[in-house]
Amino acid sequence: MQINIPLKQVIDNSYDITIDALPTMHFETKVAIVTNPKIAGLHLAHLLGKLSAKELYIITIPDGEHYKTQESIDTILESLFNHRFNRKSLLVAFGGGVIGDMSGYAASIYQRGIDFIQIPTTLLSQVDASVGGKTGINNAYGKNLIGAFHQPKAVYIDSYFLTTLPSRELGAGIAEIVKMAVTFSKDFFFFLENADITNPDILQEIIKQAVLIKADVVAKDEKEHGLRAALNYGHTFGHVIENETKYKTFLHGEAVAIGMVMANEMAVEMGFMKQEDALRVQSLLERVTLPTTYSIKNINAFYEAFFLDKKSADSKLTFILPLGIGDVTITDEISKEVVLKVLCKFGEVS
Amino acid sequence: MQINIPLKQVIDNSYDITIDALPTMHFETKVAIVTNPKIAGLHLAHLLGKLSAKELYIITIPDGEHYKTQESIDTILESLFNHRFNRKSLLVAFGGGVIGDMSGYAASIYQRGIDFIQIPTTLLSQVDASVGGKTGINNAYGKNLIGAFHQPKAVYIDSYFLTTLPSRELGAGIAEIVKMAVTFSKDFFFFLENADITNPDILQEIIKQAVLIKADVVAKDEKEHGLRAALNYGHTFGHVIENETKYKTFLHGEAVAIGMVMANEMAVEMGFMKQEDALRVQSLLERVTLPTTYSIKNINAFYEAFFLDKKSADSKLTFILPLGIGDVTITDEISKEVVLKVLCKFGEVS
Repeated sequence: MQINIPLKQVIDNSYDITIDALPTMHFETKVAIVTNPKIAGLHLAHLLGKLSAKELYIITIPDGEHYKTQESIDTILESLFNHRFNRKSLLVAFGGGVIGDMSGYAASIYQRGIDFIQIPTTLLSQVDASVGGKTGINNAYGKNLIGAFHQPKAVYIDSYFLTTLPSRELGAGIAEIVKMAVTFSKDFFFFLENADITNPDILQEIIKQAVLIKADVVAKDEKEHGLRAALNYGHTFGHVIENETKYKTFLHGEAVAIGMVMANEMAVEMGFMKQEDALRVQSLLERVTLPTTYSIKNINAFYEAFFLDKKSADSKLTFILPLGIGDVTITDEISKEVVLKVLCKFGEVS
Repeated sequence: MQINIPLKQVIDNSYDITIDALPTMHFETKVAIVTNPKIAGLHLAHLLGKLSAKELYIITIPDGEHYKTQESIDTILESLFNHRFNRKSLLVAFGGGVIGDMSGYAASIYQRGIDFIQIPTTLLSQVDASVGGKTGINNAYGKNLIGAFHQPKAVYIDSYFLTTLPSRELGAGIAEIVKMAVTFSKDFFFFLENADITNPDILQEIIKQAVLIKADVVAKDEKEHGLRAALNYGHTFGHVIENETKYKTFLHGEAVAIGMVMANEMAVEMGFMKQEDALRVQSLLERVTLPTTYSIKNINAFYEAFFLDKKSADSKLTFILPLGIGDVTITDEISKEVVLKVLCKFGEVS
């Protein structure tokens, strides 16, 4: 006989993103703020002036992408167990994307899932990582290969935290913003070409537009079955670059910037994008001092590394390629010949 | 400004449980069967006569509850990465509850979630662990403290696998079945009192009834916000017993059997349950040779251990206590005095 377990349900994971000065908040539960030593030194006093809880704990993880590991997750979980956190307790992610992804992942597996909120402190995490509930860690095989979808209960974006952000990290955030413009909004791209990002009001408007685009995409495709994959534009190449350089040479956004230039080259090769549009994207990236070049030492190794990327299903490579500016296609029909030809253009000149 | 991320969605995690001889199945994807050496030796040949795949891998984890750890999860994930499993790949859990819980958890975090199916080979996992999508591992702090809710795509229950099950394990399965009867169905309890479990047809009918009860509960309360917690009857005590004995003395179902007797004692103490009903439950458990006694060495340590159990929220102890047979109450209003009084009845006579 067959017994059906009917689990068709309406699940409401909706949440609000507040783009404004951080409000005062108090929680009648145990709360742990997960952060890194640098952000804690710069901004924890400010946060603690706003956020209070019945029992409050601070957990720090060393700063940097190479600490986005199982060991750091163990550190977080160990603290939660030590302080007897339960299913009603709350995690607060206070930092950049690494802190956000790890806090979210820890929250998703602690006692099969507890709540967390995000207070992103970098431009990149404000516009990208804080929206959409992707959580996870890296391992020896690559980036974000272990993780979960776990939506935050709320996100607070306060541009105050950007005042101490190094300019390289600001640029890395702009890279993801350019990505959203190229994939989804020509108008936003034109706006960016003429925008003065050193003006705080204009930066806030840019953040708002980027969050609106990402929010729209995530609402339509939370689990990345289709549309949301377009946001991986530049990432297929970028992840390999990050992996090859052991996450040490480039910030994530910088690797994505190079990755977008590579994807554009492929789009031009396929006749999807005009050369002049590709150059326009490259010019915008360079105007905000993002890197756009990378010398591939070993074309074949680079090609093989694509297959470890989790977005590749059943040994077919998937590429996200612009159709001009403001539109994009997701294709798994690029021949190995074309891929190698494009990679060769970035090959080291010997 | 506030931007709402609208993630109110209809999500269909429904699946079928087939209670019958295992059907023939073929998958056009990469498939990994996760099992243990003992089950593999006894039944893998039978399974491989039925299940085939485009690429098939077998992963074994040492047998036993004390291998339900992060290390075993790492072993599974490592294999999946080595063989380049992707988001369309499939895990097959082939074994008891430990294999099922770990395979499900590995599936839930590999690349943020891939599919898995369950082929449970013990009575306990057939009636309990295979229904409901709870996955997880143990750690130094207790049982199932890290995990996720991840529903299988299908469950196949074939009583053929029970023919080699040691009688102690059969009894451990019956314990969970008695649990479902006491909490939800007086009729089923009466049926069990007179059932000959050595008769395969009767055993199959018992499995069916138990799965129907659990399926009904899970469909009404997938994430254990209320009703489903009733299925933890006997577990609050049982988990502490397992922890104190380092998972070595009792099978899970055996610890639950003792836990039910303790919960009944508390229910009698509170006036929720008649002494004669408590004795009736104990008699049924003893008839299938389940243990019903345990000597608590340190009452206070036992009491403190409750607070590490994940079902305890905000330092209030929650107990699931029968209201007679076939009904149950969930309460967090048992005084420490009453709890200690009940524990004392099980205290070691010095």
